Amino acid sequence: MSRPCTEAPRVYFVGAGPGAADLLTLRAARIIERAEFVLHDALVHASVLELARRAQQISVGKRAQRPSTAQRFINKTLVDCARKSSCVVRLKGGDPSVFGRLDEEMQALRSAGITFEVVPGITAASAAAAELQASLTLRAVARAVTFLTPCVCDEHDDATWAPAIGSLRAGGTLGVYMAGRHIAAMAQRLIEHGVPSAMPISILESVSLPNSRHWIGALAAAAASPPEIGGGPVVLLIGEALRGAQQRAGERDIEIAQAA
Amino acid sequence: MSRPCTEAPRVYFVGAGPGAADLLTLRAARIIERAEFVLHDALVHASVLELARRAQQISVGKRAQRPSTAQRFINKTLVDCARKSSCVVRLKGGDPSVFGRLDEEMQALRSAGITFEVVPGITAASAAAAELQASLTLRAVARAVTFLTPCVCDEHDDATWAPAIGSLRAGGTLGVYMAGRHIAAMAQRLIEHGVPSAMPISILESVSLPNSRHWIGALAAAAASPPEIGGGPVVLLIGEALRGAQQRAGERDIEIAQAA
Repeated sequence: MSRPCTEAPRVYFVGAGPGAADLLTLRAARIIERAEFVLHDALVHASVLELARRAQQISVGKRAQRPSTAQRFINKTLVDCARKSSCVVRLKGGDPSVFGRLDEEMQALRSAGITFEVVPGITAASAAAAELQASLTLRAVARAVTFLTPCVCDEHDDATWAPAIGSLRAGGTLGVYMAGRHIAAMAQRLIEHGVPSAMPISILESVSLPNSRHWIGALAAAAASPPEIGGGPVVLLIGEALRGAQQRAGERDIEIAQAA
Repeated sequence: MSRPCTEAPRVYFVGAGPGAADLLTLRAARIIERAEFVLHDALVHASVLELARRAQQISVGKRAQRPSTAQRFINKTLVDCARKSSCVVRLKGGDPSVFGRLDEEMQALRSAGITFEVVPGITAASAAAAELQASLTLRAVARAVTFLTPCVCDEHDDATWAPAIGSLRAGGTLGVYMAGRHIAAMAQRLIEHGVPSAMPISILESVSLPNSRHWIGALAAAAASPPEIGGGPVVLLIGEALRGAQQRAGERDIEIAQAA
């Protein structure tokens, strides 16, 4: 077993968490407060950026369907900043290691010989479960939880979804990231692949923020008439572990969603 | 879509994160500091408990293979404390919604009519990835990440592991919790189920703490001679997403592990 090496980092990949500034870790807040440059995604909330008082803030957010040349620009900006400053923060929504393109950016820094540290963050699915007062795992029911993202245009998609559907059918929980535009199609597809149409699904927007909203209902209802989504980040939770939350919500939420 | 209701909670289920006190969220730290009672698991680190200056601290930790009557005792203690105080913290290692028996305890409070809130925490797999400077997901490789725990004595085990193995074979990442006693058997079983014996696996103990240690190597090496584990919490990461971390570690770690 080896101990981690300790060399002073110049760049910090910091998980900004789901949105609320007080869901940053103490470590993240301390580093952001002394940062000289903060490169942040579009979805990092303003209240988090307010902590970066000293920093030059650079928005490098790329949203779905924008050209991915953006990634090369981010890598280059990160390296340029690190050559000018010994405290650069790369702020990523949620946890940097969950759908955060962390690897590409770490690789760019390694190639440039720049030291860095990763500060983990609260991932959206954890915050979503907290908001629903549900547990992602449930003893003797949900013995696994899987996070994935739909890439409906991609040939590798089935290889990713088949085990996820298997896990769901075995009682496991799915957390689906960046699925805002694909909810109805995804719900329909799950049903076609044998997931019971009564399986609970919750759709949460802007988790942890004052304008947080959630919907919970059956997979069939999400396929037939998903709730309208605004501009905030969306995370879905699907699985038997949500059954209690669905029962507590009763019929009210489903009606609201269907009227939307 | 509905807005979350807001009624003053008496009990806070708080994620203590992986160990280091500064990986608590700002919200968690603030609540712990004003708590009157803190009920904590055995694996919550002393540096986190130091924040609970005002609180009566009650250790309710149950470790593997201890009688599960412990859960009824925890539920009862939680309800008793909440009847005496309006700020009770139930502190759970990592994120409360990931293998935290959160549901049973929330249900006990609901039955007693006691309001509560869940404060998410950094789950061990996120902190482990940060420590390895690896990403749990990897574009075009690891399109899903699954957290699970081995229950080798249980008839439902195969239903949980089959999709996880499918995900691993499709490039996905596994985070395995509470697996300290089962590493060699689990690695052997994965190989028998068709996971390549060269698949990278990392074994991390006491992630984020000063005595943190990690080992990284091939699944076959973990099956043949797993590293010795101490008394700290252990999390495993398995998958192609660890390939880079394994290559950076080189051969050195594997030799140390085989000598252990």
